Amino acid sequence: MKRIGLLTSGGDCQALNAAMRGVVKSLSVSGEDVEIYGFLNGYKGLIYANFRMLTGADFSGILTKGGTILGSSRTPFKTIREPDENGLDKVEAMKHNYHKLRLDCLVILGGNGTHKTANLLREEGLNIVTLPKTIDNDLWGTDMTFGFQSAVDIATQAIDCIHTTAASHGRVFIVEVMGHKVGYLTLNAGMAGGADIILIPEIPYDINKVVLAINERHRRGSLFTILAVAEGAISKEDAALSKKELKEKMKSYPYPSVSYEIAEQITQKTGQDVWVTVPGHTQRGGSPCPYDRVFASRLGSEAGRLILDGEYGFMVGYKNREVVKVPLEDVAGKLKSVSPDASIVKEAKMLGICFGD
Amino acid sequence: MKRIGLLTSGGDCQALNAAMRGVVKSLSVSGEDVEIYGFLNGYKGLIYANFRMLTGADFSGILTKGGTILGSSRTPFKTIREPDENGLDKVEAMKHNYHKLRLDCLVILGGNGTHKTANLLREEGLNIVTLPKTIDNDLWGTDMTFGFQSAVDIATQAIDCIHTTAASHGRVFIVEVMGHKVGYLTLNAGMAGGADIILIPEIPYDINKVVLAINERHRRGSLFTILAVAEGAISKEDAALSKKELKEKMKSYPYPSVSYEIAEQITQKTGQDVWVTVPGHTQRGGSPCPYDRVFASRLGSEAGRLILDGEYGFMVGYKNREVVKVPLEDVAGKLKSVSPDASIVKEAKMLGICFGD
Amino acid sequence: MKRIGLLTSGGDCQALNAAMRGVVKSLSVSGEDVEIYGFLNGYKGLIYANFRMLTGADFSGILTKGGTILGSSRTPFKTIREPDENGLDKVEAMKHNYHKLRLDCLVILGGNGTHKTANLLREEGLNIVTLPKTIDNDLWGTDMTFGFQSAVDIATQAIDCIHTTAASHGRVFIVEVMGHKVGYLTLNAGMAGGADIILIPEIPYDINKVVLAINERHRRGSLFTILAVAEGAISKEDAALSKKELKEKMKSYPYPSVSYEIAEQITQKTGQDVWVTVPGHTQRGGSPCPYDRVFASRLGSEAGRLILDGEYGFMVGYKNREVVKVPLEDVAGKLKSVSPDASIVKEAKMLGICFGD
Amino acid sequence: MKRIGLLTSGGDCQALNAAMRGVVKSLSVSGEDVEIYGFLNGYKGLIYANFRMLTGADFSGILTKGGTILGSSRTPFKTIREPDENGLDKVEAMKHNYHKLRLDCLVILGGNGTHKTANLLREEGLNIVTLPKTIDNDLWGTDMTFGFQSAVDIATQAIDCIHTTAASHGRVFIVEVMGHKVGYLTLNAGMAGGADIILIPEIPYDINKVVLAINERHRRGSLFTILAVAEGAISKEDAALSKKELKEKMKSYPYPSVSYEIAEQITQKTGQDVWVTVPGHTQRGGSPCPYDRVFASRLGSEAGRLILDGEYGFMVGYKNREVVKVPLEDVAGKLKSVSPDASIVKEAKMLGICFGD
Repeated sequence: MKRIGLLTSGGDCQALNAAMRGVVKSLSVSGEDVEIYGFLNGYKGLIYANFRMLTGADFSGILTKGGTILGSSRTPFKTIREPDENGLDKVEAMKHNYHKLRLDCLVILGGNGTHKTANLLREEGLNIVTLPKTIDNDLWGTDMTFGFQSAVDIATQAIDCIHTTAASHGRVFIVEVMGHKVGYLTLNAGMAGGADIILIPEIPYDINKVVLAINERHRRGSLFTILAVAEGAISKEDAALSKKELKEKMKSYPYPSVSYEIAEQITQKTGQDVWVTVPGHTQRGGSPCPYDRVFASRLGSEAGRLILDGEYGFMVGYKNREVVKVPLEDVAGKLKSVSPDASIVKEAKMLGICFGD
Repeated sequence: MKRIGLLTSGGDCQALNAAMRGVVKSLSVSGEDVEIYGFLNGYKGLIYANFRMLTGADFSGILTKGGTILGSSRTPFKTIREPDENGLDKVEAMKHNYHKLRLDCLVILGGNGTHKTANLLREEGLNIVTLPKTIDNDLWGTDMTFGFQSAVDIATQAIDCIHTTAASHGRVFIVEVMGHKVGYLTLNAGMAGGADIILIPEIPYDINKVVLAINERHRRGSLFTILAVAEGAISKEDAALSKKELKEKMKSYPYPSVSYEIAEQITQKTGQDVWVTVPGHTQRGGSPCPYDRVFASRLGSEAGRLILDGEYGFMVGYKNREVVKVPLEDVAGKLKSVSPDASIVKEAKMLGICFGD
Repeated sequence: MKRIGLLTSGGDCQALNAAMRGVVKSLSVSGEDVEIYGFLNGYKGLIYANFRMLTGADFSGILTKGGTILGSSRTPFKTIREPDENGLDKVEAMKHNYHKLRLDCLVILGGNGTHKTANLLREEGLNIVTLPKTIDNDLWGTDMTFGFQSAVDIATQAIDCIHTTAASHGRVFIVEVMGHKVGYLTLNAGMAGGADIILIPEIPYDINKVVLAINERHRRGSLFTILAVAEGAISKEDAALSKKELKEKMKSYPYPSVSYEIAEQITQKTGQDVWVTVPGHTQRGGSPCPYDRVFASRLGSEAGRLILDGEYGFMVGYKNREVVKVPLEDVAGKLKSVSPDASIVKEAKMLGICFGD
Repeated sequence: MKRIGLLTSGGDCQALNAAMRGVVKSLSVSGEDVEIYGFLNGYKGLIYANFRMLTGADFSGILTKGGTILGSSRTPFKTIREPDENGLDKVEAMKHNYHKLRLDCLVILGGNGTHKTANLLREEGLNIVTLPKTIDNDLWGTDMTFGFQSAVDIATQAIDCIHTTAASHGRVFIVEVMGHKVGYLTLNAGMAGGADIILIPEIPYDINKVVLAINERHRRGSLFTILAVAEGAISKEDAALSKKELKEKMKSYPYPSVSYEIAEQITQKTGQDVWVTVPGHTQRGGSPCPYDRVFASRLGSEAGRLILDGEYGFMVGYKNREVVKVPLEDVAGKLKSVSPDASIVKEAKMLGICFGD
């Protein structure tokens, strides 16, 4: 008999349910007797013993369902070692609940922050298997994370919609794409949507280069320009500041987000109105795309196999089209980001896409 | 031989191309010899004789294409009688170009503002036929405008995406829906997306009623709430102000749009974070939905018939599922809006949807 | 206290769940104490007392879900008065179970066949309210049925996909669209998808006219042609036969469906290959489109109101954009179909669409 | 100055236009002076000198457009060396036209058959660069082909639609998926759609195992079963036959396709009705999915680079997430197929999916 805990932590994304279904299906198909404890709302559920027992029926029909049937919440790693408002030691509480329920393993689905805590729990002696969930695709140790391709689809759809208006009105449009501190999502959605200019955190932009590209398009008869701007895009000037200087500067930052700053600068330098669209949280919601459903199911089934084999302390990742296991200590605390020299960036530049560098 | 001018004015929307294709197809199928002059970028094209001759090939394959192949621009009615920066009389210029090209009729696709100018040109003796284009569905004299259902689809998709995140995180989410000064789009997208609270301009809201509804949901165990808020939503207090008072008040309005104000008030009164999503211009772009393609094609073909029969001075509209002609003088300057007593509102309330009244 | 039975009968379609959610929400919002008995798999559930009690939770989150949470089955009206294999009188069994559960009303969602049985139960003294479900839109007494617009969307998508292949290869393609004996679905999907030829049961076709239209397109340089053919399309010859003669003829009918017959005839007369695509059951599945979600919710809420007011013996329908009640005896046994003289047909012809007549 | 020929051959698929746009954009961005000759309808255009010169405008706005702006046709490799009906030597004609137009390179987009001819032209001394186009993903030398993921999306959508009907009616449904002789498309769409049974050519099925799986589901309370069946699926018995024996057997084959045979066998052995849906050609049409747009654009830009560098005789492929060049002689005549021992198959089995083996 195996007793397995399950929790989803951090911002939700598509295919969390598909992945959990994969874990549970592979365990139950194996014939092993299994009890599943679902902790509600991320690590909070584990800390405060808020859980419910789950059966096969809970996982039926959820392959195509967005969000997470367990609920999620953010529990920042830097607060995980601090006691809560009632003085409770969170790490000890998690260990206590894990042992009290006599769990064989805890399966944790999450992104970067989540993995730091997961690794801490591993160091504390718990059996942990994790799954890489994030629309940002910024997890070290895996080529791909689930949620990413679904988010690309939604962001691309937004650019597609904007395209017809931009072309009809001869306007400059910015579509602000999620992705936290990395540019994978913006780069892919931008290329898929035919954006003329793509600005990502890994390649700080020079606003004059951006303006030049717009003017050049105008000169050649294209009266509209579409920019795909990552929410984490940063100018060369700001990228050159120290963390402290940047923090100081941001105190009086008057814009809701970076796209509005860029829009204003373009308007100042070209005299053209610039329209900003922010698809925002829609990018992490809705039914997972077929790619993510297959991908998350595959990772989930491998997590099941690791549990059956008693192989703990791994994130299930994806390398060269194969599902692999990656030691948690290698993953925790590292960030994957777009290399400015990556082939895909070079290819995008060959297509005439301006990165503002 | 018929010589027909064609122009699209105001914000673009889906199915403009489908409608123009309908006009041109019905003319050419009739066997009548026809020349089509497409004026570029709305009334500007007519004012400055910026046009090109169009053939059947221009209208091939555009049934499913968003935007407008003619381009569009806003030419506010209140400026139409003012001379341009070079002293040009715009109305006279339009008449001059119309007559110079010996047009038999001018087909104009547009919304409210566009129809005022169209009616003015009719009064000036030009033969005019118009088509009701707007995602707002606020044109008087027709049950439906094309673009509307496509925009409902996109706004609903946004709410669908937000739903999974709201449910997973137990959050309050506002999705701000377009619609200018009327609530059709928000009402329909809100109902389709299963919004719990719908705020529209025609039913000014009391923020305390909104908060009550959220708390009541919470009390009954629904930890998330979704609000569909029209961009033109207005509070009871603001609705009671005179136009002048409101204008004065708005001078120091610190929010990007009404949703952010509502979000802040909810946070103050409930202590809960509220997340705002603004799909914005995506709602007017992309391929028209099948409903709009059929609808716009039908209106377009009827416009063709009117031209062939020499019946001018009409908007082609839709009443009780039949395509009808409506005298332009009846349409111009009037607004259609959601009646607070409309059956659909009552039905929505019977479903438990809160309107904040 | 109200005790309400609920059942869905006949082929499933989109928005069945949305409609039931509407009924239950409006009842529970009213404050009335209500018990809901869901009969499983259509009339069978009522006949054999196969039901379960439903709570609000059963209706949460099903607005966007295709199919029916109650299951469905076909129970042909002509068999309803015959005893079952064990000699059970089905009508008496239904009455017995209705009374045994002390139901105040039975809400039945279905199409044409379902309404005949519903009316029979009304005649037998049961309190009945019905909702018009069918992708065919062939129910008398209502302008619209839910499922229809969702099916139009799916069939149109199929034509859209075929369009690119047809155009790339210069081929003749037939897309066979559902709709049983009427042409609403094919007519709307055909117009939305830009089909060149539309064949519907209400307008028997002459294959020579069809061939002429293809050749004429070819002559004018369009090397591909798309036909939207209703599954119930019929040739002039066959339409002229008596029912008996037709039945006799069909005995040796070698084709899977009418489209294959038409394809072969076109090939014989033009020498061109014709490709047939049959989207089939996909047309009745998947998440309901926003139009259907709003529409079904509105009808459902009105059904709730009728129950609260004790108004029984009605189908909730839709006339001139308003939800209305229609006496069941008026609905049962009648069919609504496309009039060959309907405006939409004339408009389609003005657009150059060939109906083969 | 570079003079480049361009042609698309074989069945069309999504992202052909995106790929050609990539080639042309990368050439024009490079600053090199380029002339593009587009041959119409595949190799036929090259054989009969049916071409037109293309400019940048031809490639504008086609990133999202399905099909191919050049048209396509099948020219089977086994006929390529035979003279045409007028005695024309096709290979010589192609060489003649290539040289007459003084082309520097011919860019060919196609699948397996196309690559054999492309390699032949290379052997005949022409400069060739190819791009891997097929929804089947069966091209040797590349992990992925464009069109594949778009087709997965459409096939999955079909399964999603069928799911709601299957579940509502407790039926067995077969969705027949394309893929020619290989199972990639069926495997991925089947996993994404949550199919219970997946039959692919690489894993011949035993109908008794299939029936067992259906019965087992039934026994555990799942009253419906969904099978994703590849159009090339084959039974163990048939797989054991020699090519000649199989050909003989197929002469009296009474079914439109393999799914109908499987359906009949299941009905015979279980007494249950089985419904077959064949999405058919819809799977290769419509707008490419974002994944394919990015992927095809990347390959296209690399093809441009090869041309600029004068590197000829390669297919541009994809290995371990990097765009690579693969010698044409290595590609021609080879087929890539799903290994029955592939990880993805094992993972699918761990999820409880039955392959009938």
